Amino acid sequence: MASYFGKHIHISVFGQSHAPAIGVTVDGLPAGERVDLEALQTFLRRRAPGRDATSTPRKEGDVPKILCGLVDGVTCGAPLAAVIENTNTRSKDYDELRDKPRPAHADFTAQVKYGGHQDVRGGGHFSGRLTAPVCIAGGIALQLLERRGVHIAAHIRSIAQAEDRPFQPLGEPLEVLEGVKRSPFPVLEERAGEAMRSAILQAKADGDSVGGVVECIAQGVPVGVGSPMFQGLESQLAAALFAIPAVKGVEFGSGFEAAHMRGSEHNDPFAVEDGAVRTQTNHAGGILGGISDGMPILFRAAFKPTPSIAQEQRTVRLSTRTQEALQIHGRHDPCIVPRAVPVVEAAAALVLLDAMLDRNTDRF
Amino acid sequence: MASYFGKHIHISVFGQSHAPAIGVTVDGLPAGERVDLEALQTFLRRRAPGRDATSTPRKEGDVPKILCGLVDGVTCGAPLAAVIENTNTRSKDYDELRDKPRPAHADFTAQVKYGGHQDVRGGGHFSGRLTAPVCIAGGIALQLLERRGVHIAAHIRSIAQAEDRPFQPLGEPLEVLEGVKRSPFPVLEERAGEAMRSAILQAKADGDSVGGVVECIAQGVPVGVGSPMFQGLESQLAAALFAIPAVKGVEFGSGFEAAHMRGSEHNDPFAVEDGAVRTQTNHAGGILGGISDGMPILFRAAFKPTPSIAQEQRTVRLSTRTQEALQIHGRHDPCIVPRAVPVVEAAAALVLLDAMLDRNTDRF
Amino acid sequence: MASYFGKHIHISVFGQSHAPAIGVTVDGLPAGERVDLEALQTFLRRRAPGRDATSTPRKEGDVPKILCGLVDGVTCGAPLAAVIENTNTRSKDYDELRDKPRPAHADFTAQVKYGGHQDVRGGGHFSGRLTAPVCIAGGIALQLLERRGVHIAAHIRSIAQAEDRPFQPLGEPLEVLEGVKRSPFPVLEERAGEAMRSAILQAKADGDSVGGVVECIAQGVPVGVGSPMFQGLESQLAAALFAIPAVKGVEFGSGFEAAHMRGSEHNDPFAVEDGAVRTQTNHAGGILGGISDGMPILFRAAFKPTPSIAQEQRTVRLSTRTQEALQIHGRHDPCIVPRAVPVVEAAAALVLLDAMLDRNTDRF
Amino acid sequence: MASYFGKHIHISVFGQSHAPAIGVTVDGLPAGERVDLEALQTFLRRRAPGRDATSTPRKEGDVPKILCGLVDGVTCGAPLAAVIENTNTRSKDYDELRDKPRPAHADFTAQVKYGGHQDVRGGGHFSGRLTAPVCIAGGIALQLLERRGVHIAAHIRSIAQAEDRPFQPLGEPLEVLEGVKRSPFPVLEERAGEAMRSAILQAKADGDSVGGVVECIAQGVPVGVGSPMFQGLESQLAAALFAIPAVKGVEFGSGFEAAHMRGSEHNDPFAVEDGAVRTQTNHAGGILGGISDGMPILFRAAFKPTPSIAQEQRTVRLSTRTQEALQIHGRHDPCIVPRAVPVVEAAAALVLLDAMLDRNTDRF
Repeated sequence: MASYFGKHIHISVFGQSHAPAIGVTVDGLPAGERVDLEALQTFLRRRAPGRDATSTPRKEGDVPKILCGLVDGVTCGAPLAAVIENTNTRSKDYDELRDKPRPAHADFTAQVKYGGHQDVRGGGHFSGRLTAPVCIAGGIALQLLERRGVHIAAHIRSIAQAEDRPFQPLGEPLEVLEGVKRSPFPVLEERAGEAMRSAILQAKADGDSVGGVVECIAQGVPVGVGSPMFQGLESQLAAALFAIPAVKGVEFGSGFEAAHMRGSEHNDPFAVEDGAVRTQTNHAGGILGGISDGMPILFRAAFKPTPSIAQEQRTVRLSTRTQEALQIHGRHDPCIVPRAVPVVEAAAALVLLDAMLDRNTDRF
Repeated sequence: MASYFGKHIHISVFGQSHAPAIGVTVDGLPAGERVDLEALQTFLRRRAPGRDATSTPRKEGDVPKILCGLVDGVTCGAPLAAVIENTNTRSKDYDELRDKPRPAHADFTAQVKYGGHQDVRGGGHFSGRLTAPVCIAGGIALQLLERRGVHIAAHIRSIAQAEDRPFQPLGEPLEVLEGVKRSPFPVLEERAGEAMRSAILQAKADGDSVGGVVECIAQGVPVGVGSPMFQGLESQLAAALFAIPAVKGVEFGSGFEAAHMRGSEHNDPFAVEDGAVRTQTNHAGGILGGISDGMPILFRAAFKPTPSIAQEQRTVRLSTRTQEALQIHGRHDPCIVPRAVPVVEAAAALVLLDAMLDRNTDRF
Repeated sequence: MASYFGKHIHISVFGQSHAPAIGVTVDGLPAGERVDLEALQTFLRRRAPGRDATSTPRKEGDVPKILCGLVDGVTCGAPLAAVIENTNTRSKDYDELRDKPRPAHADFTAQVKYGGHQDVRGGGHFSGRLTAPVCIAGGIALQLLERRGVHIAAHIRSIAQAEDRPFQPLGEPLEVLEGVKRSPFPVLEERAGEAMRSAILQAKADGDSVGGVVECIAQGVPVGVGSPMFQGLESQLAAALFAIPAVKGVEFGSGFEAAHMRGSEHNDPFAVEDGAVRTQTNHAGGILGGISDGMPILFRAAFKPTPSIAQEQRTVRLSTRTQEALQIHGRHDPCIVPRAVPVVEAAAALVLLDAMLDRNTDRF
Repeated sequence: MASYFGKHIHISVFGQSHAPAIGVTVDGLPAGERVDLEALQTFLRRRAPGRDATSTPRKEGDVPKILCGLVDGVTCGAPLAAVIENTNTRSKDYDELRDKPRPAHADFTAQVKYGGHQDVRGGGHFSGRLTAPVCIAGGIALQLLERRGVHIAAHIRSIAQAEDRPFQPLGEPLEVLEGVKRSPFPVLEERAGEAMRSAILQAKADGDSVGGVVECIAQGVPVGVGSPMFQGLESQLAAALFAIPAVKGVEFGSGFEAAHMRGSEHNDPFAVEDGAVRTQTNHAGGILGGISDGMPILFRAAFKPTPSIAQEQRTVRLSTRTQEALQIHGRHDPCIVPRAVPVVEAAAALVLLDAMLDRNTDRF
């Protein structure tokens, strides 16, 4: 078990879906930073269910209570801790699952790892609900970064077969980033959003679910943030992104497409613009040798379809080792991608803030 | 800078391409494990250039000298350190590069991060040569894993547009894995290899380069290895893989393809085979909730085309901020993917050995 | 800032003296371990003030609320988080201190480090109150250890000039350890306790304070726990102990006295007792080369006198850089040593549990 | 096993006494720092044996070979690695020890921990020889610190019953620090040195050994370096110091003496001197709340007597569990304290450099 992460901005995430509370401690926030709790709440609301007809009607208040770390709304250097109390829990839905693991869930692996002692209610510590504390920490990190001119935004790049236009690799106007962050269904092209919604509702009607891709851009990261090898930006971002439930792929810049390109096409030529060194294309996704090159940092995360579906599935009863049918009840998102968008931003913000602080140690 | 990695098997990689030596320390190897140095040398040879007409004619002996950590060829519990002396270095090729960064290389980002003090010769610490020490550590980890029935193998899944058949998600016969590891050009289908070689030679003739995808399978990992969230297998494997130069994408199981699938299709049904719980498909790539589910662990890493190409490229002269043409001389692989195959295996072995040791701490 | 600690049992302590709450997350507890909350409460009560006439009349309820990590009172593998709400806070006592740092407190150093943003109320994150969360985590660790036959107990070795008899280096009967843990003033010899109480009350009457030494013993730790060098038991125990406010010295076995001894006197001869290898003396304090040797682990921590005293002191006004007199009001322990006893046990338990889990990774 | 340490200046120590080499990697050194190899050699020579009649006549050249990390003598941002080849090894002296552990050595604990696979020759990884790599890393750290006005020096505070005068808590003239660092027998009062030498030679003549105390001062550390709790200066310094073989006690400022003092006596009054805030006494040893207060950092480490003595000792034969006499042959220091002085400085330098770099992350 290691639900902690980060070198300077060290977060420790805790909670289970149906425990009294979930939350996070954030150690290492620089002192003297104002935390706008209203803006944080607005950010968290983007992750909450029920904003759109396509998501689960479950209500998650997600109102964090800051236990410490602030004095008069300003970071005081001490660790910040925040909790969200769990209120709307219906434990009975989950009783059968201890012995009959749900396909594509962590029920079976947790059963083996924890010897049957894991909390099965609502997925326990494996629940997507645990991304709320990540968003509290990341939402605060986003505020610090924005104050320094680093802007992070994500959108739904695709759901099922429906695709939004990609972010422009050389950067988007800030209004575009702000627009997509305000949108209840964050896409760049409205038409794409409609096609995605249709795909989600069709899947729901079929008792099924769909996956998708979230694309994220970070603009304004200065040159020289990151490190070679294991503390490279790609390594650290990927580690944070794969910690989000349902992420099965991560790529930077051209990503997997780069594997089909030639060097003459993929290599981003350097150029001087307004006295600054920039690249004329951005196949690298803003990262060379693990270190930011001053261009927008651009990456995508692939989410598998929600594992909880209404259709009957095949599983085994662990105690008897017999094949059985499984019917999952309860309310579930037929697609978690829209709600995952701010989680991706949060993960990116935590890693980038950490790396920017780490850069301060390059000079003595 | 953080060229170290791992919780139990803690490696610290050092060296620059043209420094006196490169090497690695490996702290945390269990005592009493025989290290077969001949097998290690065989493994390292797979990474060395010059095995195939498609790679650089540069000679890299890559004969590691074990400085400590072994007594009579058996681990003694103390850190193991190994070095490879750098012999075949032609520094003069690199003189021009300090002021004229090569596109898609770390020259520019290193220049900014290290204030001009970085070692520019041959890419310095950013050189692909630094994957040799990773292979020393990983090659030893592979031996420990094989002794416990964990078999890891990788092959070239694609180069340019040429594709090999994928690994069978439910596992390959061990002879297939051993065969591909013995092959000088590791593919499953000989015809695919020929198409790849052609693509590489054509790129070389064009003064260009190509990228590709490496696919890796780990068979025999027991259920319950890994953790939720940040120490999940996907997070840790991705962090290690993105530390390999040129990797721009990582995906597990169905990966990005999962984003286009429905839950009813993607969810792997559980079944009982010979008394053991297995899944009937393996879209998850052997990992659920960050924890191994007993199926083969399956993932792919996308490599960008080699940045060093013979064609003239555009860059800037940093001192004068003027646009300039750049001609890279010297011998370079037109495609590093074949030589990256054992590096991917090494990275996987280090992470899996670490996670398997960590599992020992689940019980008190 | 780094209020986290531990490799396997990773604790993250949060809170300020006058923030809404203090607490701790504990990541890495093995699943399936029952946590006796009543026993935990009994343990925490030993740290609470007001048990003895010699301590501050302030009331600290110290009733932790477990937010997660347990299912029906048993660890479930997920991080455990616990909070204690702060109720009895009188902020006005501390208003003057931001500009007039109290001698021997962290007021001045925090002011510089956090640029004036630190929480000055009651010492903020530097408050001795933050040892309560350490005791929650450590109190749970103690339960796991006792279940495996590891018994940890501490007593007041000295206060001012009054001394208790030392623990017997070869071990104490368990009844003695249990007795001292039950005692409201934990000493081995009642007469020593009376002398200590007198010293405390005399200091209080003088508007002054006194320090002392806590001695701790851990019996039942098997041979082979720990590591050479930086993860040695002494290094890890010392790091945890010096994190307790007011600790200024730590020594193991003969400690500083060993510096005056000869090898022939200090070296503990090995002997066989009931088939087991033991030493006939225990000058080593149970640790050789950073690793437990099977004898009782024995160490002492020196606590400076409580910095808050009623007597007028000299300090400076930071804003004007003028010398000023300082009068500290409020209720303060004239000696924190009696309340520090369980904190020392808690720190020891966390390190030893961590090291015992780490030992599981010695074999593959 | 964890022979690595540090957050920013991450060292990984490797080697066994009789392996081909010992060495260290140092990851995280800021780029652009000149490393004076001659000064480093001078520093290492202070640790080498044979400088004084009181130490072992064994010759340890201790000439490190820098493998990487420097370009033209200046740090390049890449990890620095250095090795010392082991030449003067006489393995046969150690043959008997595998089954007959030497009292007060790590032979027995290593035997159990590593299942008999440990390197027994010369103590293997537990050998005091492994402090040489620590001195390489620390010697470089010292150069960086001195360049910023931080001066670290240590002296022998006592050996057996002979005592040197203590460092003045408010600081020493730099000439005094430099003088003691140049001295082959580093004491402040020549007469004390003579008494110490006599004590050592008398012990040697008796086939015995003596211990002692090393006192260290760090002047010029600015206010605000360090952290509360587990990354406090005391915690980190103690962890590094207890990693030095034979250290059994560490204390800061008044240390154990503080336990006998009253607050009115121990609390260091603040005062303004030349516009700077200073304390008028320095019982705190320059550290308040884990953070430097601008006064000299002052601490002492107690070393036990060398465990290897010529006198016959009692031990057990592990294979037969029988009591046996043990006669240790070979050449051993009757007192390692004089040679430990630079090791203490090295450990202090590594921690303080790390903490000073960490301070850069307090501001964003």
